[in-house]
Order: sequence, then C-alpha cells, then structure tokens
Amino acid sequence: MRIKSIEEFQLEAKQSEVERNEKIDETVLAIIQEVRKNGDNALLNYAEKFDGVRLENLVVTEDEFEEAEKQVSEEFLKAIEVAQKNIKEFHAAQLEKSWFIHKADGVMLGQQVTPMDRVGVYIPGGKAAYPSTVLMNLIPAHLAGVPDIYIATPPQADGKINPHVLVAAKSVGVNCIFKMGGAQAVAAFAYGTETVKKVDKIVGPGNDYVARAKKWVYGDVAIDMIAGPSEICIVADETARADYVAADLLSQAEHDEAATSICITTNKELAQEVATEVNRQLAKLERREVATASIENNGQLIVVDSLQQAFTLVNDIAPEHLQLMIENATDHLADVKHAGAIFLGNYSPEPLGDYMAGPNHTLPTSGTAKFASPLGVYDFMKKSSIIRYSETALLKEASYIETLANMEGLSAHAKSIEIRRKKK
Amino acid sequence: MRIKSIEEFQLEAKQSEVERNEKIDETVLAIIQEVRKNGDNALLNYAEKFDGVRLENLVVTEDEFEEAEKQVSEEFLKAIEVAQKNIKEFHAAQLEKSWFIHKADGVMLGQQVTPMDRVGVYIPGGKAAYPSTVLMNLIPAHLAGVPDIYIATPPQADGKINPHVLVAAKSVGVNCIFKMGGAQAVAAFAYGTETVKKVDKIVGPGNDYVARAKKWVYGDVAIDMIAGPSEICIVADETARADYVAADLLSQAEHDEAATSICITTNKELAQEVATEVNRQLAKLERREVATASIENNGQLIVVDSLQQAFTLVNDIAPEHLQLMIENATDHLADVKHAGAIFLGNYSPEPLGDYMAGPNHTLPTSGTAKFASPLGVYDFMKKSSIIRYSETALLKEASYIETLANMEGLSAHAKSIEIRRKKK
Repeated sequence: MRIKSIEEFQLEAKQSEVERNEKIDETVLAIIQEVRKNGDNALLNYAEKFDGVRLENLVVTEDEFEEAEKQVSEEFLKAIEVAQKNIKEFHAAQLEKSWFIHKADGVMLGQQVTPMDRVGVYIPGGKAAYPSTVLMNLIPAHLAGVPDIYIATPPQADGKINPHVLVAAKSVGVNCIFKMGGAQAVAAFAYGTETVKKVDKIVGPGNDYVARAKKWVYGDVAIDMIAGPSEICIVADETARADYVAADLLSQAEHDEAATSICITTNKELAQEVATEVNRQLAKLERREVATASIENNGQLIVVDSLQQAFTLVNDIAPEHLQLMIENATDHLADVKHAGAIFLGNYSPEPLGDYMAGPNHTLPTSGTAKFASPLGVYDFMKKSSIIRYSETALLKEASYIETLANMEGLSAHAKSIEIRRKKK
Repeated sequence: MRIKSIEEFQLEAKQSEVERNEKIDETVLAIIQEVRKNGDNALLNYAEKFDGVRLENLVVTEDEFEEAEKQVSEEFLKAIEVAQKNIKEFHAAQLEKSWFIHKADGVMLGQQVTPMDRVGVYIPGGKAAYPSTVLMNLIPAHLAGVPDIYIATPPQADGKINPHVLVAAKSVGVNCIFKMGGAQAVAAFAYGTETVKKVDKIVGPGNDYVARAKKWVYGDVAIDMIAGPSEICIVADETARADYVAADLLSQAEHDEAATSICITTNKELAQEVATEVNRQLAKLERREVATASIENNGQLIVVDSLQQAFTLVNDIAPEHLQLMIENATDHLADVKHAGAIFLGNYSPEPLGDYMAGPNHTLPTSGTAKFASPLGVYDFMKKSSIIRYSETALLKEASYIETLANMEGLSAHAKSIEIRRKKK
C-alpha cells in the first residue's frame, strides 16, 4: 500500500445506477416476466439452468432440516447460540411502540406501530454459506412480530441447502425455505407463484442480478437496500497497533476485489508500519488473490495533519464500517456524522460486528450511510397515523381548513368541513 | 354509486411498476442524462420547453419572497400559522434519540441518530399551488435537524412561483427554492448541477414523470416513496351520518379520476342513503367532472355482515386514508393492521388530516401501507451502530467469531480476531 497525503486522496467516482447495468437489466427483466407468467415452473427451470439441478421440490422438507442437524459441529451450534443471544439483546432495544397524545377538546393524535405480514429473506448460496446473514435478517423480523418469514436461497448442485444455513434458520424460526436464487427468487417474492406467497418486503444481500431485480421490483414491494461492495475505513493515531490495523483492513479486502479498505492516520510512522504489515500478512492469507487485488484497486493509506481533517474525510466517505483506533475513541463519536457502524478502540475489530457483538451486519455501503441506516427491527414495522377530533375541536379549526382547501382549489375538501360546521 | 356485496368487491389489480411506463421511462432517462451532462443549461432549456418560460435565474430571489408576502391574505397567514403549530407539535413527538447500552467487561453498544446533510423537496406547481405540502415536507426535515433544505417547484408561465408556496416556505425556513420541475428537477437534486447541490434524499409528490425519475435515481439518493393516486376507505355503521360519509368520499374523488373512494358498511340503509347523498352532493361540486369520473371508475359501496368482515377487507386494501365512522371507533384501532392514517369518529374527516391536525399528509398509497409509513421526522435521520468491546470481552467471544468466520470461508476475518488473541 502506497502512503498518500490528503491532497492525493480521491474517492473513486461511483458509477451511477442509472447508467450501468443495461445488460444485466435485460436479463433480469426477462426473468421477472417469466416468473410472473409461469410461476413455479419458471423457478424449477431456472434452478436447472443456473444452479444445475432439477429440483423435486421447491421447499425444504422436515427431513432435510433433520439431516442438516446431524451435519453441523457442536462448536458451530455454540457459536450461533451466543451470537443469537447478543443479536436478540441488541435488536430488542430497537422495538418501537405506538404512542398517543391527548390534547384539549378530546383531541387524540398518535402513531400506531404494527409489523408487516410477510417478509422474504434472500440468503446467497451455491458454494458459500452465510449462517450469520440468516441470523442478522431473521432476528429483527421476528422481534418486529412478523408472522410469516420466508427464506430464498439457491440450491447446491445436489439440490440441497447448506446445513449451516438450515440449522441457523431453524434455530431462530422460519416459516418456509425456498430453493430459489437470483432474480427469479426476487420475482417470486415480489409477485408470488403457486408455492411462494407474495411478500411485503424483500431483504438480504445478493449478487448483481439479485440487486438489480430488487431495484426493479421496488415500489411493488419494499426492499432493504441495494448493497454495493463492502468497505472499511480505519482512523488511527499513535495508540493503534499496526498489525491490528493491517489485519482489519485485510478482513475487508478478502471479501471482494471491489471491496475498499482505507486507513487514515495522523501518524506517518504508523502508516509505514501498516504498509509493511499489510504486505507481510497478505502473503499468508488463504484468499490472498482477492485481497491483493482489492488492496491494489481500492486500498488507501492517508496521512492527515489532524483528527479534525480525518473526520472531515470520514464524513465525505460515509463508510459502511468505521473503526476509530484512537485515544479516547468514545469521545469522538460526535465527530462522526455518517457511517454504517462505528467500532471503538483496539479491541472492536470489524469481524466482531459481522458475527457476534449484536448490532446488524447489514449496513449501508457506497456512501449511502449519508441517508440510510443499518438493518433493524424498524425495517419490519410500519406506522399508521391516528387522528381523532371532537366536534368542538373541529369547529375551532374549521375555517382554517376551509381557507387552505379553497386556496388549493380543492373545494370538496372544504365542503367536507362545511357540512359539519353547518349541520342540521 | 351502486351497492355491492362483499362477494362482488374487487380491488382493481394494480398494474405493476415493472411493466408500465416504458414510454415515460424513455423520456425520463433522456432528461436525467441531459441534466447530468449540461447542468444548469439543461434546466433552463427544460423550463422553456415544459413551463413555457425563459428563466433569468434558477433561484428565487429575496425580492420575489418580499413581493409574495404582499400578495397573500391575512386569513391565509393565520391558517398556516395554526397548521404549522399543530404539525410541529405532532412531529416533535417523532424525534428519535441516540441510545447506548452498557454490558459486562466494558462493552458498550448503541445507535447514534443523526440528521441528513441535504434534502430536496419537490412541490408541484404550474396552475395549482400546494402550500400545505410545503409545510408537511419542510417541518419534519427541520425538526430532524437537516441543515440544508431545498425546494424545487416548476415556475408559472411568467417565471414566478405561486406566492402562497413562497410564503409557506419562508414561514418554516428553506435554504433555497429552485425554479425547476419534472424529471429534470429530480435529476438536478440527485446528481447536482452548477447551481443545485446534490442532495441525500428527495421527497414530495409529483406527476408520473417525477415519480418515475424518483424510481430511477433511487439508490443514488434516498426517496420518500413512489406515490400513486389518493384513496379513502370509510367503515361506517348506523351511527354514521350519510351526508358526512358522502362528503368525505367526494373529497377524495375530486383529486383525480384515478382516485379511489370506498365505503364499507354493516348497514344496508346507510349504504342507500350514502349512494343518494353522493349523487346529490356531486351535482354541486366545482370539480364534479373529475369527481364523477373517479366515483364511476373506482367508487365502491360495500355492505358487509359484520365489522370483523369489514376489517378483513380494510387490511386487504391497506388504504391510504381510513375513516372509522363507527360506535366506539377508538376501541377498534387494534383491528387495523394496515393503513396510512386512521381517522376516528364523525368529526375527523380526511381533509382535517390533509391540512390541520398535525400528522403528515404524505401517506403510503396503492396498498403500500402494508410496508410503508407516513412521512415523518424519521425520514430525515439515519442511524449508525456503535460497538465498543474491551480486550477481556473480545477474548471471551473470540473462539465463536473465529468458528463462524472460518466456516463461512472468510479466514482473514478470523485472523483479525486471532492476532488479538495471540498478541505478543
């Protein structure tokens, strides 16, 4: 990693959603239409085409769950048990309640908070398996009180689903797991088929086809976000250890060649040590090819004059993951305006958040932390406004309502008030 | 209005976003590209083409604000003063606060809540003017603490903006009003021009071009929602007055030929009286042509056997506006799962909510109340997760993190924990 000054820093201009992906969109739209037209048959055909298996059944059976339980280790079960406890504890604090205010003349106003009816969770599959993603998506939906929660995940070539995914899902509770992936899974969740019920919201990560399909169906159903490649930004001073900083940068770099790892430091020596450590540790990584490409493409090591300068840069970047490895890190929380998750101190590395601490690992990427939040219980609930006026209260404000309605040219609105004012 | 039984009720199948609008999309995408390429010049050219005016300046000047103040009535000023007070009071109750929990071994977890930096509000213009929409969008953004709030609204043919819109905006506070409308305004907000700064979120209603442009830029910026035509659903029993029910149905019908007005009642006589009243009142409406078309297209008067049946229907429809004109209406709140806003009793007609009561009038339409909420302060804020572990706390859970990371094939994630566990 080459060390740069702040003047040399440049955030790679993000290619716009509007311009890219024309080719992907063509495929995605054809798949959506095919699923809407041919339902389950389309899903079975796409599984054959993309996942290489002719499925007997779209739905994971009780036998398959039982078989999966025999295939996972005690260690794994213990790890997801502790993770689940932490994730539940954190997300329970997000639960919103209905509220009501009472005013003069019998006026009551408020917001009633209610869960969605049905949610579809997409879990990437194929060669990899992400039980952590299962926990991070199912738990907040459960806490919100969503009665019907489904998972879609592409089958392996043998028609099975990874046992760790099945066991994780079973441990939280899921109504149904569908063996379907890609844009076809998104289409099935958005519009329904004979077997798959239409859901209200689709959440979970996926490849470009999944992401574009989510963008297309957005509006007909809700979606969590359109996720880009993962990012980490570490702010470090002389109290940080270079070997820890390097390890954390690389934990992000191994995700994807397009992942971004940035270290901003006030300490030139630390920058040099981090550069050395990154090279030393890279050589030993299993996924060193991916990590090397990511570091070469998007790795940045920036030396700044002050922490103030560092935080200005951080807020421009609005990183998905931000680690503050600086003295009295907690005192600097107020300096952060935009970040998905903020990790404080030398013992809060990003993988702690991915798997264990409790906060959600689904976070806004590509600078969208400027307007978006981590996935949470609030993603699975919605609000209804409540308005109750008495006759007295309405009559007091009647003339104002009529004035505004008539001014806006909506005289039937005014009449709905007038008829009550002039009642016989 | 013809009276139907519940068996005859059919919600018009909503045409999907994915399939419609190909023609509009072509225009919209061309406009977005032109604005990205030619910035202010593109905006000026589109104003000439679509609004019929060669603008001297994209930005409303101080002189124009002053001139507007002279053009509005005292009545209007008083009406927006009261409305503003109510809207502020209600929305202040929505303000979310950061929270932190402290656990054993020095662990701190939490969520930091922060405002967005810049928000763009679209206000429809041309012949109509909607100062109420100005209040409903600006006030929650202000309460959230957004420092930069802009308005875009298309100019009249004389290059001016309606004085009521200007005065309403000034009364709440706005950083800048841009004379731009349609897809070009959305593009300018989403990507910036020489004069218009890129915003983080675009909110506010608009025509089909505005709606489609919002869908296209979604992801690059946040948007509030893609709004469809307005709807009202009234549940009435024998305690409801037919003339009020009819007036409220018509207040929705006057919006748009595509608006939907539904009355569900347990009382056959009331249904007949409502049908009569609708016809009687329709004849006297200024906007009777629009209202008649809307009632003919989408008006429905349904007689059901029980309130339970009525609420099942309501929850299927998930209406934007729901009026409960039934005995002990408040006690039935728990029966409503999905609605944008719920109006209780005979003196809480929908126009009260549009202008005065306090809750937002930007509400989810077309059944999207199943997954979406009214516009609120929460629309202009976002959350960052906070994670702080001590060395002791991390070491206690280290093995679980490493187990899960290795299982998912992300060994550099495991190494970021291991290096702390095995530190020298």
